[in-house]
Amino acid sequence: MLQPGETHKAEEIVRDTVASVPAIDPSWHERAIRRLNSLTKPLGSLGRLEEIAAKLVAIREEEFPQFSNKVIFTLTADHGVTDESVSAYPKEVTYQMLLNFLSGGAGINVLCRHFGIRVVVVDIGVDADTSGLDGLVEMKVARGTKNMARGPAMTGSEAYLALHHGIVLAQQARRDGGDIIGIGEMGIGNTTAASAIAAVLSGRSVSEVTGRGAGLDDLGMQHKVRVIEQSLRINHPDPSNAFDVLSKVGGFEIAGLAGLTLGAAARRIPVVVDGFIATAGAAIAVALQPRSRDFLFAAHRSSEPGHDALLKFVGLEPLLDLRMRLGEGTGAALVMPLIEASARLMKEMATFSSAGVSGAKE
Amino acid sequence: MLQPGETHKAEEIVRDTVASVPAIDPSWHERAIRRLNSLTKPLGSLGRLEEIAAKLVAIREEEFPQFSNKVIFTLTADHGVTDESVSAYPKEVTYQMLLNFLSGGAGINVLCRHFGIRVVVVDIGVDADTSGLDGLVEMKVARGTKNMARGPAMTGSEAYLALHHGIVLAQQARRDGGDIIGIGEMGIGNTTAASAIAAVLSGRSVSEVTGRGAGLDDLGMQHKVRVIEQSLRINHPDPSNAFDVLSKVGGFEIAGLAGLTLGAAARRIPVVVDGFIATAGAAIAVALQPRSRDFLFAAHRSSEPGHDALLKFVGLEPLLDLRMRLGEGTGAALVMPLIEASARLMKEMATFSSAGVSGAKE
Repeated sequence: MLQPGETHKAEEIVRDTVASVPAIDPSWHERAIRRLNSLTKPLGSLGRLEEIAAKLVAIREEEFPQFSNKVIFTLTADHGVTDESVSAYPKEVTYQMLLNFLSGGAGINVLCRHFGIRVVVVDIGVDADTSGLDGLVEMKVARGTKNMARGPAMTGSEAYLALHHGIVLAQQARRDGGDIIGIGEMGIGNTTAASAIAAVLSGRSVSEVTGRGAGLDDLGMQHKVRVIEQSLRINHPDPSNAFDVLSKVGGFEIAGLAGLTLGAAARRIPVVVDGFIATAGAAIAVALQPRSRDFLFAAHRSSEPGHDALLKFVGLEPLLDLRMRLGEGTGAALVMPLIEASARLMKEMATFSSAGVSGAKE
Repeated sequence: MLQPGETHKAEEIVRDTVASVPAIDPSWHERAIRRLNSLTKPLGSLGRLEEIAAKLVAIREEEFPQFSNKVIFTLTADHGVTDESVSAYPKEVTYQMLLNFLSGGAGINVLCRHFGIRVVVVDIGVDADTSGLDGLVEMKVARGTKNMARGPAMTGSEAYLALHHGIVLAQQARRDGGDIIGIGEMGIGNTTAASAIAAVLSGRSVSEVTGRGAGLDDLGMQHKVRVIEQSLRINHPDPSNAFDVLSKVGGFEIAGLAGLTLGAAARRIPVVVDGFIATAGAAIAVALQPRSRDFLFAAHRSSEPGHDALLKFVGLEPLLDLRMRLGEGTGAALVMPLIEASARLMKEMATFSSAGVSGAKE
């Protein structure tokens, strides 16, 4: 793993990865549709499962791609902006939840056990000494970002390093046989960073894209809006430069998820994007490389109001709408089995001719 | 199993089952909410999964109900109204698909293999000789209903027998250890019957609740509307009498699913209702016994326009909206693992105190 001194290498790897994301060949998509139309069901009657199946074929460039080695990355980090009291929970909860992930007691652990998904817990910027914790992937860039209400959240070097770490995670996942990746996160204060990114990338007002996070009341939410407005005024991130946006008002977990997205797309691995904060990471990836969009699946519609702006920016429609807003990757965990099932339907369903079923009347 | 001559027994069993559906005790629901609020997540952040978990606790009257023995019933039947050319597919497809279910090549088979669900295929009224087919549950009431555009679809005796058969299926599922039941169907012409039921129970116009079924064009759909209008004019089913509606414009699979719903509710087994036609069955059950509503989960929102009217009638909001319209139980198969997961989350997630995680700031 690169160390803080080797930023030039990180920058090079990030640029190479961005450049190497392949373009999707639409003929694979058409081929999948022909197959789907031959299966024993009314045309199109599996709805969005057919859309998923065709997208998977185009991503993998295989007639019958299968997805059984499922992994979710839960990236954890702290945010300097919590100094401004933007969260209903104290900052210590990031580290406490990291321990909860490692001992298997969090929501994401239960769902991953249930669905046969591996969870990889990563410290990419938690403000605590996490060295030597069993089962933790240590990739700490710094002990939390700086307070973006007073200046940039991170240096350019830190942003490149965090993006690079995400790319390394995608590489490792591929090496370990992972064929589908979910991206999730945990970090007190990170809806504040995600809302700032949503406002800049979408051009919507801060109040439109800011929500209650883990549970702010009305006054707390108004304060959060003012803190984000101040952060944008002080840093003036450039909407046309995703790297500038990321480093000024982002977070380490968001940068890491952006890197993971790019690294996975470059290797033709489908990425299941969890909720609001994960979509902020995916949006940075898409802004850096629009081709990465074609490798993404939006898991669910978060209750956070800024999610809609980010979903429109990345051009995705979520598969679930269960009013969830937990993060961690929990929405991605619910959707991965549906994606796996879509691929199996295409492979295992009988065709009209193989099953001797009559087609529609002329 | 009862034979056609023993209608009086069938009627008695149906009446007993309707009467024995228990009322839900709201204190179990409140108890579940207290538990959910103690888990390591922001209050309510698991959204509808929390609503599911609390409902399961109230259904089972257990602190930690678990659902691993999952079964989906796919009831197949023919419809006399296909004489009026109301479907894009020939009537023979019902029997051909029944064979496809038995050989494991249909959509429902693939999904059930994927999610570890048992599929039970039932002939409750297919217009073909199905005797001796391996793996088929034979409960044929008759070889299809009569043409409802010319008179009642079934006799009162046939309706009671079909309801009774559904109750027997619920009994058998319980005996075999089934702890959650999905209801699905297949029958060329059955969206015509379901639309007729939807119009009568909801009071909406036939054109509002009638769709393309397996793939009618505009002209075909207009014709289908006229056939349903004629069926209602000739039979004048009584909206306040669900049994009258069922026997005059229903179908054998719809009656069987209504019986299954009542039989499951009477045994405190949660029922996952697939799509449009399954919801017509559930709606008949709810009309016969409003308490059965509390045991139901609506799997997904079908593309058929009449589904909305039936969902409002039974008072359920579907969990998925994937633009599916295949039937068979496919939507129920996708949702059962989510329901199972909701129960596991409540049982296995750490609490704030057990994990040493700080709560929200005051």
